[in-house]
Amino acid sequence: MKRSLIAITLLSLISTPIIAKEFVITDAQAATDVGNWHIDNKALGIDKTFSVTQRVLHGGKQAGVRVIDIDNGVMTISLIPTRGMNIFEVKSGDIRLGWDSPVKEIVNPSFIELESRNGLGWLDGFNEMMVRCGFEWTGHPGVDDDGQLLSLHGRVGNTPASTVIVDIAEQAPYTITVKGAVYEKTFKKNDYEVWAGLTVVPGEKSFSLHDQLTNLGDYENEYQIIYHSNYGQPLLEEGAKFSAPIKEVSPFNQRAVGEMNRWNQYAAPTVDYDETVYNIVPYADSNGKTLAMLENKRGDKGIAVSFDTKQLPVLTMWKNTDTLKQGYVTGIEPGTSYAYNRKYQRELGLVPKIKPGEQKTFDLTFTILDSKEAVQKTAQAIADIQGGKPIAVLETPLVNLP
Amino acid sequence: MKRSLIAITLLSLISTPIIAKEFVITDAQAATDVGNWHIDNKALGIDKTFSVTQRVLHGGKQAGVRVIDIDNGVMTISLIPTRGMNIFEVKSGDIRLGWDSPVKEIVNPSFIELESRNGLGWLDGFNEMMVRCGFEWTGHPGVDDDGQLLSLHGRVGNTPASTVIVDIAEQAPYTITVKGAVYEKTFKKNDYEVWAGLTVVPGEKSFSLHDQLTNLGDYENEYQIIYHSNYGQPLLEEGAKFSAPIKEVSPFNQRAVGEMNRWNQYAAPTVDYDETVYNIVPYADSNGKTLAMLENKRGDKGIAVSFDTKQLPVLTMWKNTDTLKQGYVTGIEPGTSYAYNRKYQRELGLVPKIKPGEQKTFDLTFTILDSKEAVQKTAQAIADIQGGKPIAVLETPLVNLP
Amino acid sequence: MKRSLIAITLLSLISTPIIAKEFVITDAQAATDVGNWHIDNKALGIDKTFSVTQRVLHGGKQAGVRVIDIDNGVMTISLIPTRGMNIFEVKSGDIRLGWDSPVKEIVNPSFIELESRNGLGWLDGFNEMMVRCGFEWTGHPGVDDDGQLLSLHGRVGNTPASTVIVDIAEQAPYTITVKGAVYEKTFKKNDYEVWAGLTVVPGEKSFSLHDQLTNLGDYENEYQIIYHSNYGQPLLEEGAKFSAPIKEVSPFNQRAVGEMNRWNQYAAPTVDYDETVYNIVPYADSNGKTLAMLENKRGDKGIAVSFDTKQLPVLTMWKNTDTLKQGYVTGIEPGTSYAYNRKYQRELGLVPKIKPGEQKTFDLTFTILDSKEAVQKTAQAIADIQGGKPIAVLETPLVNLP
Repeated sequence: MKRSLIAITLLSLISTPIIAKEFVITDAQAATDVGNWHIDNKALGIDKTFSVTQRVLHGGKQAGVRVIDIDNGVMTISLIPTRGMNIFEVKSGDIRLGWDSPVKEIVNPSFIELESRNGLGWLDGFNEMMVRCGFEWTGHPGVDDDGQLLSLHGRVGNTPASTVIVDIAEQAPYTITVKGAVYEKTFKKNDYEVWAGLTVVPGEKSFSLHDQLTNLGDYENEYQIIYHSNYGQPLLEEGAKFSAPIKEVSPFNQRAVGEMNRWNQYAAPTVDYDETVYNIVPYADSNGKTLAMLENKRGDKGIAVSFDTKQLPVLTMWKNTDTLKQGYVTGIEPGTSYAYNRKYQRELGLVPKIKPGEQKTFDLTFTILDSKEAVQKTAQAIADIQGGKPIAVLETPLVNLP
Repeated sequence: MKRSLIAITLLSLISTPIIAKEFVITDAQAATDVGNWHIDNKALGIDKTFSVTQRVLHGGKQAGVRVIDIDNGVMTISLIPTRGMNIFEVKSGDIRLGWDSPVKEIVNPSFIELESRNGLGWLDGFNEMMVRCGFEWTGHPGVDDDGQLLSLHGRVGNTPASTVIVDIAEQAPYTITVKGAVYEKTFKKNDYEVWAGLTVVPGEKSFSLHDQLTNLGDYENEYQIIYHSNYGQPLLEEGAKFSAPIKEVSPFNQRAVGEMNRWNQYAAPTVDYDETVYNIVPYADSNGKTLAMLENKRGDKGIAVSFDTKQLPVLTMWKNTDTLKQGYVTGIEPGTSYAYNRKYQRELGLVPKIKPGEQKTFDLTFTILDSKEAVQKTAQAIADIQGGKPIAVLETPLVNLP
Repeated sequence: MKRSLIAITLLSLISTPIIAKEFVITDAQAATDVGNWHIDNKALGIDKTFSVTQRVLHGGKQAGVRVIDIDNGVMTISLIPTRGMNIFEVKSGDIRLGWDSPVKEIVNPSFIELESRNGLGWLDGFNEMMVRCGFEWTGHPGVDDDGQLLSLHGRVGNTPASTVIVDIAEQAPYTITVKGAVYEKTFKKNDYEVWAGLTVVPGEKSFSLHDQLTNLGDYENEYQIIYHSNYGQPLLEEGAKFSAPIKEVSPFNQRAVGEMNRWNQYAAPTVDYDETVYNIVPYADSNGKTLAMLENKRGDKGIAVSFDTKQLPVLTMWKNTDTLKQGYVTGIEPGTSYAYNRKYQRELGLVPKIKPGEQKTFDLTFTILDSKEAVQKTAQAIADIQGGKPIAVLETPLVNLP
């Protein structure tokens, strides 16, 4: 797995355009890290505008954090290698994917104690547009059947990537891939490798995640993953709407029960709203593909999240329409599992296992909807999958929480 | 809040004296940190001697820690941006404010687990002349009413400053201000901004703290703060004395009960002394101002701590006259609260709240007393506030600890 | 204790050979750290081949870790100053001392939460050939009699060295010593200084540890240490054998009881084997010296570990012959103590105390056995110490674990 930095060296030494391919910007095995770094289409002699830039952050709990900005000409995606390849935000014109958490800094995991506050330490760093919640476990904190405290939403989102590779295709459409290897390794526990990849094409307003989880160990083990994608203004507003092809929706807990008649509608920022959460079993097309959409009130802006129900069978919708400063945000969260503590999900059949050497793949596509037409087209795709099939709206939570 | 580093750049490029003002040496928002840095009166064309120097530490658990030394010509103050703008020590001639903790290094919070040892992790880094203990909570570790472990003395003292600004007034007396923004932000919990400022005038043997706590969130919340200032040799010695205008003094716990007849007198370093702690309600002048003094045996050296009882109504005196190596030290600790766990202080009325957007200000002045006259003048100021009013010496602790 | 880096500076400035002695490559007191660094016999004008190199690692949880490679011409020892001067691995021809943990990176302690997983956080970084387990405590995690959770195997192995010194003797045999000061200091708890030293002679296939633990505090306190040395392939294999002069051997727990008839023999990598552990009281020679050996099946490769039973009276043999990927490894672990939680070892008399100012010394020698003759010679040395004296094989564990 040893990789060379020769390509990078060449770029800085010669001035004539070269056809580049793979840039290893961090490599734990070779113990290298390029720090601040930049590549763009001009340096590569490509006439399609794009750039990829790594920034090293300083100040406060950010010290040493790496952020990679991928500008594809119409959209800038900010990835965080130091935080499990999470996506901080995506900006495209007047649309921003992401939200305004009270946590402003991009926090280095070295400052996080995940088990603090009875397992809520994760909240000290939560502000991303997309956080991987897994892979050893996901969900709310709590003591599992074996007596171990499972901290909120697992560890991968607070694990720095070991190897980070930028790959730029040599031919049109010059697809840009940034992938990072993140390891969850604990002697006598898990031995998981995750290649977390993001792919984007210059000029397009969508991007895809392609993650590969491999059990490097010799024992079958449980795993869980939620792709916790989060959106505040401008997409979220009073009258904004969530939609997906729904087979079943149920309230996560008692707090959500009273709102089942409007579970997919959003309120304005609301004092003391806190949050409601909904568990969804989506319908999918004949290939197992489905999608969910958040659209604004006017229906001219939105985000579509497509995923594969064979990989991620359930979907959590998190409605956190509290005040702006408290973090006005909604989550569209495809997953293997809901947000319950792992111990409650085994009987729901939502704690899958991965065999030795087995590889699980997770593919998601996020598409910015920047017009009424784009929103309507997505709505139609959702309606097509629903196809008039019934929606089961449960009135009681699947889990009777204490 | 974005600030420019242009002033710094200019300084390094040009050799003619310039009138400087503000130097942003760390800025999380701009993701900058100047690292090792120095400014002095000569570079600024000022004829009053002073300098401000930032050092980056290395080795052991110090790796990456920033220390700012402010030399005002007669005194050097060492601040620690990486540890919540705590003051490590102050040196002036043969007087040193500070103490000799067994912990020698200035520990990077990334190596601290505050919740370790049942919430005593703070003790792995405690060696400063002044530690802010707050702001979400303060006091001894323990499980609060809601089931959350509150670790010893809160988190701010182990939180790296996000923005650090050095401000030097353009006109005499060329007041130097170093201020840092420290954030206690946890999603769904607190959203506190603290601008922790220290002001000192070249040539003077005193300095002031001016802190501003702002609740950036939309909900009223509890806060607590203790300014845990600590003094060992040469001020602390057998026969040294603590004084303040006292309205009420009570033993913190059973350990202190037996020593109420000499609670304000200090023993020589004493094997197995451990510590006694005293809760004080001070009298104040008509403006709410009061002060406390530690003086040495001869009464020719001391430290005066002035504060505002409208901001900090109570005072803890910590007598840790154990052996030198164990940490022979006394604390003069003005606060909103005593050192009990938060759960015990609510009924004492010592857990104030801060409304959304509200700002709380804390002003303290530390004055080095380097002569008999200075000590006597301070003693007189204390006597003036006391004004013959009665001292209530309670024999039992305010809280019946388990 | 302040040391100068002048020697290093000289080396880089002048080209004529100089006689060097001491290189301080990290010094917390002077706040210095040389980062990447190299010295070799040529630079010193010595005709015996050797080099000492410090590498700064990057990527993943390695960020900022220092590794020192000592190449003595026939063997390369990799030390980890950032992890308590642990030994990562030793390579000599086709022999490697060390093992293949699922944990591949050399983890910076800033990413470790020792108390996580009920005190098993240490397992997130465990992959070394030799980890110091101590000094405040050692052993399995558990709540001690005073209510404090003692995390697995103490803290020293996850504490970065404060001062690191490379010392090269000016005369033949040009002995190389690398020593680091590691501190376990917690206010009101322990105040331990450990000078952890490794000595190696160019051209020889053995090296020695010489550790000095000093209680810098004023109170007597408990201490424990296990030198957790670990070996996988090629030494460990089916048919490999452990030997030592045995006075008493007992099963650590019920899991080991059934294997007492073959406790010193190793199986091939075995699914679901997990681990068995054996407590050994070794015999020693008239000076208190003893040794233990691991030899491969053919008896032509091995490792001998010599130690002093006056310093380290007991020995743990850890047989972790699970699968290769799970970490196929055996531990030869001389110690003051077994691997039980501290609370169980007091009644076994295995929790010694160290008085104020007292110094405890620990000397171990590791010798690579690269021939049948070397193995047989070591076997004979073991037999000589055994001298026909009886071996007590206990059938029940010393501690009745819950």
